[in-house]
Amino acid sequence: MPAPAHGPLPPQHKRVAAARRLRKRAFRAGDRAFLVEGPQAVREALAPDGPAAVHEVFVVPEAAGRHPELVAAAEAAGVPVTRLTATALAGLTETVTPQGVVAVCGLLDVPLAGVVEARPRLVAVLAQVRDPGNAGTVIRAADAAGADAVVLAGASVDPYNGKCVRASAGSLFHLPIVTGVPVADAVAGLRAAGLQVLAADGAGERDLDDLQDGRALAGPTAWLFGNEAWGLPPEVRALADAVVRVPIHGRAESLNLATAAAVCLYASARAHRPC
Amino acid sequence: MPAPAHGPLPPQHKRVAAARRLRKRAFRAGDRAFLVEGPQAVREALAPDGPAAVHEVFVVPEAAGRHPELVAAAEAAGVPVTRLTATALAGLTETVTPQGVVAVCGLLDVPLAGVVEARPRLVAVLAQVRDPGNAGTVIRAADAAGADAVVLAGASVDPYNGKCVRASAGSLFHLPIVTGVPVADAVAGLRAAGLQVLAADGAGERDLDDLQDGRALAGPTAWLFGNEAWGLPPEVRALADAVVRVPIHGRAESLNLATAAAVCLYASARAHRPC
Repeated sequence: MPAPAHGPLPPQHKRVAAARRLRKRAFRAGDRAFLVEGPQAVREALAPDGPAAVHEVFVVPEAAGRHPELVAAAEAAGVPVTRLTATALAGLTETVTPQGVVAVCGLLDVPLAGVVEARPRLVAVLAQVRDPGNAGTVIRAADAAGADAVVLAGASVDPYNGKCVRASAGSLFHLPIVTGVPVADAVAGLRAAGLQVLAADGAGERDLDDLQDGRALAGPTAWLFGNEAWGLPPEVRALADAVVRVPIHGRAESLNLATAAAVCLYASARAHRPC
Repeated sequence: MPAPAHGPLPPQHKRVAAARRLRKRAFRAGDRAFLVEGPQAVREALAPDGPAAVHEVFVVPEAAGRHPELVAAAEAAGVPVTRLTATALAGLTETVTPQGVVAVCGLLDVPLAGVVEARPRLVAVLAQVRDPGNAGTVIRAADAAGADAVVLAGASVDPYNGKCVRASAGSLFHLPIVTGVPVADAVAGLRAAGLQVLAADGAGERDLDDLQDGRALAGPTAWLFGNEAWGLPPEVRALADAVVRVPIHGRAESLNLATAAAVCLYASARAHRPC
């Protein structure tokens, strides 16, 4: 007679319940683990050369049938693959249409010292960014622009928040993430490594176009991006070598954070191209 | 004895109920009206030189006290200002913390012919963009980059959706918006007006950096942006003069729609600067 444990686990099973707690930041911090949703993101997490330590993969039977390569990759890596019911899976996800697979991963963040030692050329520093969707979108844009790291400094949102993980579209696994560092320490560390520090702010005295014209972006650069509602406070702007505005050509009062970050990071990427 | 109508209106009052229906697209289309939330957006809607016809302003008494200039602006413009209860207001809004004021505005969209006749230099065309937050963010970025119009073509989301209105942060009132035009008609009209048509697609054969190096963005340009999940279908890409990719320098698989649009529109804005 098969043991009941061989059937898909119900929501109340203690391993499902333990994973479900990871939807809350305090439990993620305590367990040093977070949830990754959907086949694409779980595939990234399982990449053999990636930074993630996957503790467990939860999958509904139907999704296991649809993604046999995922199950095989997990098993090849010695990662337990656990069947669970659709209701149990729904309790682990935050999306309206979950895609049947969730992984429990160890946190990815690395110390600032490790980033600094690698002589980065382009780093995004988020200071007090609170919206997880914005943070994830900036991480994705930073990855696309070829940034060497993203620092979530000060009281920024937890990058392991489900919304941030989803908005990053896998980029969380692609470049080093630093968390829990005061903004001033991040700036000091990056400056000591030879990066100029540019604060992006709608009221900045320097125009991004002028910086591009003047080749001021050619060197290694850390960009500081502020909170979506109130921007960068004066004491953070004062830490920067320059405060830079993305020019507003029309009548918009400002750009949203992720848009401004993408324009700044791509300006740096363009200036860093080999000629 | 004061008439009961002088007290704040309750949710069931017929004018509140009529406004509440505007949360649904079919009623917005039928009444040719939409809802604008929050003092900043309502201020934009009431701007004397703006494109909006405001039919009514709903305000909770407390917010009327906090924004007397808004109430005065509405009254000066002959717009009825109606007090309503906080519960009635909450029924009109979609935000968790509504800011106490909502306006009913006439739809803003203009015919494509009007945009074409104005000899635009930079236009964003959204083809089948379905997420209202993305559409609003692109409208805001297009405004900031100095675009002359945004066309929501094909089966794109309704720009008067509450999420789109909020994400546009007032930009909906800043530049002409065209809706309900097939993508092919939008492309034909803009091309006839002398604009080159560039489709943005991660698999594009032309690199945005190369176009910038070669001054290919100096002329009037319409950018075509596709659906957030599946991009631009082949028949739409085939309408363009070139299909352009934003370079991916890192390991991200793609950029999100609003990020890619911002980078493309800002590349055009930079190329259009007077030298």
